[in-house]
Order: sequence, then structure tokens, then C-alpha cells
Amino acid sequence: MKKFFHPAEFAVFGVAANSRNLGKNIISNSLELGFTGKIYPVGREPGEVHGQRIITDPRSLPQGIDLAVILVPAKFVAETLEMCGQKGIHHAVISTGGFREFDDQDNPAESDLVGVAGRYGIRFIGPNCIGVICPESGLCTPFNPMQVGRFKKGPVGLIVQSGGVTTQCAYCFSEQHVGFSKIISMGNKLDLNEIDFLNYLIHDEDTEQIHMYLESIEDGRELTRLAKTSRKPIVIFKSNVSKTASKIAYSHTAALSNDDRIADCALRQAGIVRVEDIHQMTVAARALQLPPLRGNRLAVISMSGGFAVILGDACERYGFECPPLPRELMDQIEGFRRAGVIRMSNPMDFGDVHDIKALAFILNRCLALDNIDGVVLSFMYEPEIAKIFGDGIGTPEQILSFIKRMSQEFNKPIALSFLAERKYIKDFKRTNVFPVFNAPVESVRGLGLLRDYSKGKAV
Amino acid sequence: MKKFFHPAEFAVFGVAANSRNLGKNIISNSLELGFTGKIYPVGREPGEVHGQRIITDPRSLPQGIDLAVILVPAKFVAETLEMCGQKGIHHAVISTGGFREFDDQDNPAESDLVGVAGRYGIRFIGPNCIGVICPESGLCTPFNPMQVGRFKKGPVGLIVQSGGVTTQCAYCFSEQHVGFSKIISMGNKLDLNEIDFLNYLIHDEDTEQIHMYLESIEDGRELTRLAKTSRKPIVIFKSNVSKTASKIAYSHTAALSNDDRIADCALRQAGIVRVEDIHQMTVAARALQLPPLRGNRLAVISMSGGFAVILGDACERYGFECPPLPRELMDQIEGFRRAGVIRMSNPMDFGDVHDIKALAFILNRCLALDNIDGVVLSFMYEPEIAKIFGDGIGTPEQILSFIKRMSQEFNKPIALSFLAERKYIKDFKRTNVFPVFNAPVESVRGLGLLRDYSKGKAV
Repeated sequence: MKKFFHPAEFAVFGVAANSRNLGKNIISNSLELGFTGKIYPVGREPGEVHGQRIITDPRSLPQGIDLAVILVPAKFVAETLEMCGQKGIHHAVISTGGFREFDDQDNPAESDLVGVAGRYGIRFIGPNCIGVICPESGLCTPFNPMQVGRFKKGPVGLIVQSGGVTTQCAYCFSEQHVGFSKIISMGNKLDLNEIDFLNYLIHDEDTEQIHMYLESIEDGRELTRLAKTSRKPIVIFKSNVSKTASKIAYSHTAALSNDDRIADCALRQAGIVRVEDIHQMTVAARALQLPPLRGNRLAVISMSGGFAVILGDACERYGFECPPLPRELMDQIEGFRRAGVIRMSNPMDFGDVHDIKALAFILNRCLALDNIDGVVLSFMYEPEIAKIFGDGIGTPEQILSFIKRMSQEFNKPIALSFLAERKYIKDFKRTNVFPVFNAPVESVRGLGLLRDYSKGKAV
Repeated sequence: MKKFFHPAEFAVFGVAANSRNLGKNIISNSLELGFTGKIYPVGREPGEVHGQRIITDPRSLPQGIDLAVILVPAKFVAETLEMCGQKGIHHAVISTGGFREFDDQDNPAESDLVGVAGRYGIRFIGPNCIGVICPESGLCTPFNPMQVGRFKKGPVGLIVQSGGVTTQCAYCFSEQHVGFSKIISMGNKLDLNEIDFLNYLIHDEDTEQIHMYLESIEDGRELTRLAKTSRKPIVIFKSNVSKTASKIAYSHTAALSNDDRIADCALRQAGIVRVEDIHQMTVAARALQLPPLRGNRLAVISMSGGFAVILGDACERYGFECPPLPRELMDQIEGFRRAGVIRMSNPMDFGDVHDIKALAFILNRCLALDNIDGVVLSFMYEPEIAKIFGDGIGTPEQILSFIKRMSQEFNKPIALSFLAERKYIKDFKRTNVFPVFNAPVESVRGLGLLRDYSKGKAV
């Protein structure tokens, strides 16, 4: 499997020098992501792409290249794969569409494909996919023009059926400054499927979390069996749950819809975290970087009274409790208040206390409580406020390191959001020191997803 | 009421030259937002702020200033207001906290306040609020340091109880490039309340939509009566709907929680659009700029098969139907396809058709159908793709103008999202030519909110 992600060199079939050719984007995307091995462009017409001569006679390719990426018309895929077999290529990404999703289940082009692959022992991804993105190796096989500079190395292994969704997932995760170990777009899954990749990522050293977008679950039994053995969190966004979607899903990746209630139940029992859209995947990705949440009881600290109210609603919506905090602690906290105008409770309106020592004291005391499983912290931030912190805590890195230290010390999660202008929130995210949520309510949603996982795994 | 938003000049009580003084932020915020009238800083200690000498004897103020902003300790508010009365000031923003939200219902400081205001005929906002932001006049009374450069003129009049929520709303709307006519943070609503401001904004020329964040509804009857007469959409985010929130809400703005089911029902009957968080307010703000949605039947055009599936689920989740489109139309659309790999249905996988003429044709034909009330368009965008459009359609402005023309021509909404890297989505939003949603699912959510409004108003 490693050669799908870290090929020493690879060939692209279906390259042409004309402006509308998509095959050459595979080469430019990989070059831009930093792939340093050799890339062989193969095509029918002579020409030059990205400084390389197009190879018109594939027989002249060297023997035993690690990987082929195939983007030739559907009717030529089988013979191209045959050529790959003859040249000792045992791994292929078949990007071409137009197989079962277009005609019918018994598409002869498909059985040809499977026959050739079997004869030569070729394993392949696709057809009808955009393949693999691996920031570590620089391999980037999508044939659409992409802003690949956005994709960073990181903890998430992503398995996706649809090419368009792959691209959007990659952009959305990157926007939240969450990086990738591997991204796989599977398409029609005629050979390798989510089970194969899940199994691989569970054992992949560079992957800490596995996220999947699926339009169908073909082998639910094996999926849940693997999930139960996994020591890494698995997050699934399963679409194709409506009648409206099921028709288009079939014509898209030949996916059959499942009974969603049954699927949901089985997934949860296996400790899989289920989410409803791509953005929620990124919420889960951030939450799952926190220590486990062992129960339902939260202390909520907000620097705005309004958000204390909004957070109270959010806690209840996501099934959390905010138990009363000890009276002595409340009294001590009230002592920190500047105007002394508000009585403390939980959720707590920490209002105008812009004193990092007070915040450290409160975080410490709340995290230490036996009846508190995690903390929600909604932090008001303007650079002007940070200046008065002193004690070497003022930059985004310093503030996040301080929060991180607290969270690690007690091994309890702190769900952190900033009440701030968007550009400052970005400054915090960019540091990648500690997970940051986009809004207070999102941070509680994140804890809900973390709890789903912690509960499923009884951590 | 106009003097609250367009004062010719105003005084700020509670200004000091020291670094921790908050009163002087009121002055700097207004200067930064472009207020050009005179501002009088009033304080107990002599000094200079923003190039102006602090007035230590308020009796030296000129008679009849339009507005006073008061941020002195609670026990001095009544006497400050008395001074205002004597100087002929009839409008005040009382920012100071520490009234009923701290002590109890019968706070003597409160009754003093009301007594003084009554005696002099002073109308006031607050106490315990951050007051008014008016991009048109440049008035910006919040006492927290703010990135006021972000706030643009625009269609939304915003009424908020809590100061922290006001700030976040202002930032969140601005992030979506939605501008404001007026922003009002009401606080404890001891004099003016949401009814007064709603009534004002309903008749305000610069306001096209009214958005409210409320922790309590005191006069539901009047609120719904006004809403029924309003020819402008009204969007409400009502928090304090849980037991957990109600305790903190009381200590925050002395808000009593309502029975939410009753409130919800009454609000909907009045044609008010109800949302659940700040981000949803911004979704509503964008959707409500579209033509009315007169029914439940959508045509969904996606440039990605995966998102056609996801959009199918979203349509069903939000109660929409995707009726089959005429066979002849489907055949014609298939003719545009490049690889010809996918059969057309609704939702429609428009895939690799990067031809603006084809898109124009399809939009035209779908919008013209009697059984289609609106269109969802999920547009894949990379600058490289746009280049091949030709026909003078390629820049974000040109693409959005083209979509806008279609929508206006048929007076039906097009819910538009881009499958693109975030920075490109921003380029589109920035133009402010036509509403852009952040993701395909969000665009369907937007149509759901638009339908709630169109239905309530039977437009």
C-alpha cells in the first residue's frame, strides 16, 4: 500500500500539451506539493509539459515504476492497465469516469479492468476518482487545478468517495489549519475500498485520526469490526441518507443507500463519531486533539455575559450539565472582578477580568474539581487587552501554550473559542499550538463529538 | 430617536487620561468609524485624551448637546443624568453596569435613574449596554477597543441585548460582508427596549432587514403585532431557552426566560424568521436579499457529483422537493457534457461543464419552469476555470452580475455557493454584487429561512 502514497517515481497516462488537457494538472499539482521523484508523462501526441517530453510509446517506459495514474478515455483504460502490467507496474490510480455510474452494473469495461488487474496483480484506486494527496511525499494526483500550497502535513487521514468532496474537505480542513497525513479519493471502489484504506490508516504511523466521507457502506460488518479495534478516533460523514439523494448518488459513484437508522446505530456502537457535514468534520478534528472527556459535567467560563447565556443553552442542547461550583470558589472569583457587578454561577460571566493570573487560578480550580469533566472557555481578545496580561503572556502562542499546559496537567479538555475579530482568531489558529473553535457554540459542539468518542471507547 | 444615531455632537461622561480608562475608547471608536462632529470628554481628573482636554466641570458644557454617553460608576449615574438634564441633553446611552442584574429588582439606583430621566424628559438606552454603532454617521459608543474599520454601511438594522454579543454579531456579519444601517446594544432596557427600536427601524429608510438577539421577550404581543405590520424581514435569535441559561441570564441582563415553545409559535405566526445562533443570522441576512421563495420545489445544479448527493440530503432535511425536470431539457443538458459520463437528474451533476453559455441555458430553463420555485447552484471555481468562460464573464463581479441578472429576470432566488478555496470565496463576497453562501448545505439552509419568511408574509 505504501507505494500509493510514497512512490519513488510515477507515470501519468493521458497527458497532452493542449490547454484543455487535465492529465498535466496531475504533474503540476505534485510538483507544487513538493514531489521530488521522477514523473513520466505518457500521451498519444508528442509534446512537452512542465519541461518534460511526453512519452508516446509506453513501451519505452522503464520497468517497475511504483505507480501509474490513468486518465485516458474509459474505453482505453483496460489496455492502458494491460500496458502497466507488462511494464511491471503494480499500483494504479484510475481517474477516468464513465464506468458503472454511467451505464449499468454489468459494464464490460469494468469486468475487463478487473480481469487485467487480476492477471497482473495490480491493485488500483478508482475508477472515477481523483486519487491521492500526500503532503509528506508531495504526491498529488487530482486532475483539477488546485491551490495545493494550502495542504499541510498533520494528524488527519482522510478517505473520501467523491472527487469534488475531496477537494472541498481538503480546503475546509486547511482553512481550520488542520493538516493531513494522507488524503484518498476512492471513486467507484472497484478494487480498493474504504475497508482497505481504513485498515491501512489504522496502522499508519503518521495518522492520528481517520475521517471518512461515504455515500454508501458496503461492508458495515468489517467497518465496525475495524473501528472497534482502532486506537485512533474514526469520524464518518455519511451522506445519501434521503430519497432525493439516493438517485443521484447511484449515478455518481454507483453507491446504494443504506437504511440510515441501522447504519447510525451500528456506527455509534463501534465508537465511530458521526457528523453531518464537512464543517463538522473539522470541528471533530479539532476536538479529538483534546484529552478525553470522561463525563457530562462542564464548567463554562465566558468573558461575555451574553455568551454565558448562549453557552448555557448550547450545553443543554448537546446534553451537558453545568453543576454549581463550590461557594468558596465563587467568592474568590468574584474578588477578581473589576466592577464587581455580576454574581458568579456556572456558566460563569467572567466579564471584565483581564488578568491572566485570575484566569489561571480559575482554570486550575475548575479543572481540579472532581465533578467537572471539562471546561468551556470563551476568551475575549483584542491585542490591547492582551498587553495588560503581563507575565510574558500576550502573544497568541503564549496564550495557547498556557491553556494547553492547563489542559494537559489535569488531562481534561478545554474547549476554547475567542470573542474576537476574525483575523485575530486566525492568528491563534495559525500557531497550531492548541485547538481553537470558531465560536463558543461550536466549542460545545466539539465537546459533544469528543464525548461521543470517549464514551464509545470508554477511555 | 434620530439623535441616538446621528447626533451633531455628543458628550462622554467618565473619561480619564489613564491607560485603563474605558471611556476614552468611546471617543477613539467613533473617530475611527468616521464621526466628524464635536465630542466632549467629561471626567473628574484633568487631562487630555485624543487631543482633547477633559472637561472636569460639566456645567461648562454648552447647552443642548444631542447625546450623552455615560460610563461612570453606578452610584454616580443618577447625578450625572441630572447634570445632563440641566444642560438640556435629552438622549443618553447609559453604559454603566451594576444595576438590577447585580442586586435585586428593587434597586434604588434604578428608580433614581428613572425618576431623573422622567423629570427632564430624557430617553435613554441601557444601563449595562454598549449603545450604538452607526456606520453612516460614524457614531460608535462601545467602550471596548474594537476593529471598527470592519463595519460597513449596509441593509441590516441590528438590535441586541448583550454587549459581548453585539460585538461578535458585528464581527460575524462583517466577515460575511453584510453591512449595517444601525447597531443597537440595549442592555437592561430600563427605558427604551426592543419594541421602541423595532418600531424605529421598521420606518428607517436605511434599514432593509431587522435582526434581533434577545434573552427575553417582555412584550410579545406588541412585538408580534409590529412584526405583522412590517414590510421588512425580521430575524430573531432568542437565547435563554434552557434551565442552564436562565440563571445566568437573569444575573446578566435581568432577563426572565419565556416558555420557548409558546414564544416560537407566536414568532413564526408573525412572519418572524427564527434562527439558533449568530452565524445563522448571517445566513438569513444573505438569503433575505434574494427574491421571495414561493414554494418548496427546487432545481439543484452542482458542479460536483458528491455535492449533488449532499445537496439532495440537505433539500430533504430542510423540507424541500427536487421534482424531475422535463426529459427534453435533461437531454439538452447532457449534450453539454464533456465526457458525457453522467446521466442528468435533479439534483443535477453538472460536473465538467465549464461553459458559461451552457450554464446560462440551464439556469434560464430551470428558472422558467412553473414547477420550480428556486435554484440551488453549487459552482466550482478556480481562476483557471474562469478563464475559459470567455464572453466577458470571468471576474467575480462578472460571474455574480450574470447570476444576479438571471435571478432578477425570473424573480426567483438562486442560492449560490462556490466549491473553491476560501480566498476565492472571499473575493466573490467582497464584491457585494450578489449573496454568496459559504458552502452548498448552507445555501439550502438559507433558502429554508427565506421560505419561512416568504411563507409567513405570503409574498
